[in-house]
Amino acid sequence: MVKGLSDFIRKAREERREFLYEYEAKEVLRYAGLCTTKQIVSKNVEEAVKAAEEIGYPIVLKIASPQVLHKSEAGGVLLNIKDSEGVRSGYTRILNNVKSKLPEAEIKGVLVQEMAPESTEVIIGAARDTQFGPTVMFGVGGIFTEVIKDVSFRVAPITVKEANEMIGEIKASKILEGVRGLPKADIQAISTIIVKVSELMLDHPDIEAIDLNPVLIYEDGAVIVDARFVLEEKKKPVREHPPVGELKPLLDPSSVAVIGASTNPEKIGHKILRNIVDAGFKGKVYPINPRGGEILGLKAYQSVLDIPGEVEMAVVIVPANLVPSVIEECTRKGVKGAVIISSGFRDVGPNGAELEKQFLDMARKGNLRIIGPNCQGVSNPRNGFCATWPIVDAVGNVAIISQSGSIALEIPTFLAANHSGYSKSIALGNKADVDEADLISLLAEDGETEVIAVYTEGMEDGRRLMEAIRKASSSKPVLVLKGGKTEAGRRAVLAHTGAMAGSREVFEAAVKQSGGLCREDLEELCDAAKTFSTLNIPKGNRLLVVTSSGGAGILSSDACEEAGLALAKVSESTIERLKEALPDYCILSNPLDLTGNAYSNPSMYRDALDIIIEDRGVDMILVVFGDPIPDAYDVICEQVKKAREYKIPLVANYIGGADIQEAEIDGLQKRGVPVFPTPKRAIRALSQLWNYHKQVTRLNGG
Amino acid sequence: MVKGLSDFIRKAREERREFLYEYEAKEVLRYAGLCTTKQIVSKNVEEAVKAAEEIGYPIVLKIASPQVLHKSEAGGVLLNIKDSEGVRSGYTRILNNVKSKLPEAEIKGVLVQEMAPESTEVIIGAARDTQFGPTVMFGVGGIFTEVIKDVSFRVAPITVKEANEMIGEIKASKILEGVRGLPKADIQAISTIIVKVSELMLDHPDIEAIDLNPVLIYEDGAVIVDARFVLEEKKKPVREHPPVGELKPLLDPSSVAVIGASTNPEKIGHKILRNIVDAGFKGKVYPINPRGGEILGLKAYQSVLDIPGEVEMAVVIVPANLVPSVIEECTRKGVKGAVIISSGFRDVGPNGAELEKQFLDMARKGNLRIIGPNCQGVSNPRNGFCATWPIVDAVGNVAIISQSGSIALEIPTFLAANHSGYSKSIALGNKADVDEADLISLLAEDGETEVIAVYTEGMEDGRRLMEAIRKASSSKPVLVLKGGKTEAGRRAVLAHTGAMAGSREVFEAAVKQSGGLCREDLEELCDAAKTFSTLNIPKGNRLLVVTSSGGAGILSSDACEEAGLALAKVSESTIERLKEALPDYCILSNPLDLTGNAYSNPSMYRDALDIIIEDRGVDMILVVFGDPIPDAYDVICEQVKKAREYKIPLVANYIGGADIQEAEIDGLQKRGVPVFPTPKRAIRALSQLWNYHKQVTRLNGG
Repeated sequence: MVKGLSDFIRKAREERREFLYEYEAKEVLRYAGLCTTKQIVSKNVEEAVKAAEEIGYPIVLKIASPQVLHKSEAGGVLLNIKDSEGVRSGYTRILNNVKSKLPEAEIKGVLVQEMAPESTEVIIGAARDTQFGPTVMFGVGGIFTEVIKDVSFRVAPITVKEANEMIGEIKASKILEGVRGLPKADIQAISTIIVKVSELMLDHPDIEAIDLNPVLIYEDGAVIVDARFVLEEKKKPVREHPPVGELKPLLDPSSVAVIGASTNPEKIGHKILRNIVDAGFKGKVYPINPRGGEILGLKAYQSVLDIPGEVEMAVVIVPANLVPSVIEECTRKGVKGAVIISSGFRDVGPNGAELEKQFLDMARKGNLRIIGPNCQGVSNPRNGFCATWPIVDAVGNVAIISQSGSIALEIPTFLAANHSGYSKSIALGNKADVDEADLISLLAEDGETEVIAVYTEGMEDGRRLMEAIRKASSSKPVLVLKGGKTEAGRRAVLAHTGAMAGSREVFEAAVKQSGGLCREDLEELCDAAKTFSTLNIPKGNRLLVVTSSGGAGILSSDACEEAGLALAKVSESTIERLKEALPDYCILSNPLDLTGNAYSNPSMYRDALDIIIEDRGVDMILVVFGDPIPDAYDVICEQVKKAREYKIPLVANYIGGADIQEAEIDGLQKRGVPVFPTPKRAIRALSQLWNYHKQVTRLNGG
Repeated sequence: MVKGLSDFIRKAREERREFLYEYEAKEVLRYAGLCTTKQIVSKNVEEAVKAAEEIGYPIVLKIASPQVLHKSEAGGVLLNIKDSEGVRSGYTRILNNVKSKLPEAEIKGVLVQEMAPESTEVIIGAARDTQFGPTVMFGVGGIFTEVIKDVSFRVAPITVKEANEMIGEIKASKILEGVRGLPKADIQAISTIIVKVSELMLDHPDIEAIDLNPVLIYEDGAVIVDARFVLEEKKKPVREHPPVGELKPLLDPSSVAVIGASTNPEKIGHKILRNIVDAGFKGKVYPINPRGGEILGLKAYQSVLDIPGEVEMAVVIVPANLVPSVIEECTRKGVKGAVIISSGFRDVGPNGAELEKQFLDMARKGNLRIIGPNCQGVSNPRNGFCATWPIVDAVGNVAIISQSGSIALEIPTFLAANHSGYSKSIALGNKADVDEADLISLLAEDGETEVIAVYTEGMEDGRRLMEAIRKASSSKPVLVLKGGKTEAGRRAVLAHTGAMAGSREVFEAAVKQSGGLCREDLEELCDAAKTFSTLNIPKGNRLLVVTSSGGAGILSSDACEEAGLALAKVSESTIERLKEALPDYCILSNPLDLTGNAYSNPSMYRDALDIIIEDRGVDMILVVFGDPIPDAYDVICEQVKKAREYKIPLVANYIGGADIQEAEIDGLQKRGVPVFPTPKRAIRALSQLWNYHKQVTRLNGG
């Protein structure tokens, strides 16, 4: 607890202020060991003159009033006052300005401040994000931050190293390196402030937001010129989450009851039962239908309680109002998990939310975990457990967690079309109980899962998500697509940082901070999942492109720069070897251009790759088939294996191939060479492998 | 010709200077009617004091020396000098600074300048682009321009309207609107300077670059504080281009000689002949082979001169050194056009370039036009003329012009896979004669072409390209993908603008200025071509999304904002009608969410679309099938037709459909509903329709 802060907060609360005065805020910062401009509050002109002399000219005068939030706009700030005469006239001017612009403002006095020498301005802010709690923002200069929105975020606590990353990742960071005659900024001084602000936010839950704006940065040190602390209105309760271990029955059950199974083929209650049967589920299946009888050749029970044996999990497809009683019966039966497909809960408003709470309370009491409601179910293709629709039969190592059902099934559909596959797919719907964090933690330990792909529109408790991602990321990549655009901060008037911290920017910063990889759209998510499902992680970012198309080579070079990969510099000895192995017309550079002659002479691909793979300067390879090369896989099959041995990820792009293109792409992908429709998509996918390498290194403290 | 300028240029040339002194440059600008800071050159301290008094304090001192290009960095600038004492000490300080940093610098004196009041700084620059000639750049503030590279370009001449667009399109343009207490800038004053700089560059070919940096902008007026004029070293000759009319035989010949036709099926000379035959060419085909005989059942001639009848065009596939004599024979035979596939010309260095010049000279004399050399040929699927490889048999209305052969064939391959097609595809290769501008002009008049898609790595004479695009764009969209990354300007040391104007930025600005649409990668180019080939141009940018997937709806909203489209606001009466027509669980908003229930009740798509199409607030529609909806086209077929009648472009996204997805996408596309793999790609493609609408309006002076 920083000295003075609790007193200031108490005083503000008493005065029904939602913020600290600037001089209070700066007092707090000074106690916290940070450098602020010297300041004295004056109640009249004479006090102001005295204060100015004590501080030393030039000085700044600023209005102190609880009603004046934007001091400059109210004419409440005068800079660079050089003598007592200036203080006298300035004092009057400020009061007149404020009185004419905001007649009701209660004037507490005028703050006399040291005038810090001009230098580069930065802004450091903090706000409590609704999902992630205390979050710190960094940006350069008022205009860069507010007009260009060139800022970076991290979730507190923030290490010095993370603070340095924040400073480095904004576009304008070059300004701090001292371009155009500007002084080189003291980066350490900035990161010290960031870390301290992060600590203040963590230690003082009463503070909702902090704005340090501007902070002047010098070659040696930094001075906080203006500071604003906004106090929190009220706290939000955090939901409890049971331990994760009990989730397994939901994804890999030995027996399942389909509650609401129907004889009508048009009904979801029928379709799901049929999918479980058709996908070849090997456990026991019990249709539940009040009319009993038989459905799809299986005996139907009137209640889950009537089933003779044990039931591990239930799929629930009954009208919303019946769900609580169904769940209650399930807990009595000892069912461990339920996937509730039915909608009509939180998704339809307060009445539905009440119903949702009802069955959740029952479930909690009975140790029953729930996926959904209002979800599209789950699928585990390895054991043929398809409690969703449609059936996507493509076993693989990508696990999908998606708030949206369509996306939960689209990713498997995409993977299947690309000769890849999935281990589990879970559609989360309303997330009454189980959420993304639960499942990421579970799948982190799942031996059948090597990649986790997540689509989410946000989480109530973002810190649990961060923990889960951090835990999983050290052993497998977590790819995240966030849906939902930036929301304006709810108290934008009081603090700039709040307004800047749209949910998406903070979300993506938090995912990155925890070791996850954010993707910008569904296609990028799918491409990355496909790539990680097949390829090794490279040891570096140096890409070599082998192409028969000069144009595709040029597009590759363009894409490489954008994606943060480097074109590998091939060694002299490799060039010598290539010269011997390839015809004269080949352009022995990177991209290595075999020219259109590859059409008549495809074995050049083989010869080129054989040599390139052995070059230690090459970390990954893109092969462009820019012609209808038949049997492309066969041409390079030995080299594909060799690249695997050398742990060099190899992908392909196949263009201009007319009729045979689709079959050729199929042939390559079937045998483990991911193919992308353009060089750009191939390179963007490869760049994710490299980004994951960096994330793992970072998580391991590298 | 601006007064004084020629004298200053002559003097600089005499003194072997490649630039004008600042005071000369500002003199020129003053004569041109622009406002600069007052200035007097002083040769000694007393002159400086006198000048300062004449100008009025505060003043600025700047070194005047031909060797000091970056005055600030050399310590050659002192700001805000307030009295004669300051002038005296400043004068000495500047000389000492410069002498210690650049001992050899020849000092011409010290410039005494008016100190303009602080305000927002902008930079206006101009450079001669290697492709487009005089080009003007605009940016805000030194740091925004140089660190963030937030600048805009236009090719001269520039109208006031275009200058205003330039000012509006930079990210930081909000600064000029007066945010954060900054003054609202006099936009007209800025555009006046831009237009004047554009005129100076056009009127004075001796000027290679102009830098006005900074220009201070006030609420009323602007003052140029520093100016630099760089003189050109030497001029580049411009190639002549014959009129376009003669190109038609190249793309739609009545007879063709395949010179270098081979009996060996592995050789390109065989493959092309076979493709011409296989694709069903209806004109006469004459194989030419020195050995005569028969190839593919056709009589082979030893020379084009031996052919009995007329020959309209020739495809040439002989070794490079034989090409000149082949072309010579062709001109003697009266052949009108040749596509030269052979490589080994400019592509292999100076010797090849000489060979290229040889055959080009012959062709010019004989009125023979040439595509290539070193190209992958041409294809016209409507008349079965496939002088390329592979055959892509998909007749449609997209014409492809591509410097790269693989890309020239990839776009038709993509279109074919999407049930669209092409009218002509031309691979340009070395562009010895025919280039993009020629073909765009030709295809602008082609009745079979409704969309032109271009891949280029740049043109020698960019202004011809601009003219061609301008001409074509009023009747059909010209989509352009530029390959090749930014090159550093060749004389970066002398002028910032030169360094900023990388080929790509200027290229894209020039395309846009002429009414074309730039795409950022091959996939975007293909998507846009497919969209334009099928859909109407909308009258506005208001999109309605109908979806069964909430997640896809959210991704659509996200994409909408990024792409510059607006989510349509549906009218109250439409909402009422929807309420009646659709079940309660539908979310009657935009996106209009039919929810997962659409899976069991797909006729909701029909009902919803039927009503939405009639809403006057809806300009385009995206339908998301977020479930395996079978026979999707049949469900909405009447509404697809209705949308066409209402001139509302309608596209679809089909996800999560497992096995049936591919066939369903196929079914929709076959019947004229373009389908995209993600909402983002669908919306990005739609946004191009809207951008084209805006371009046409602009070209028509709207």
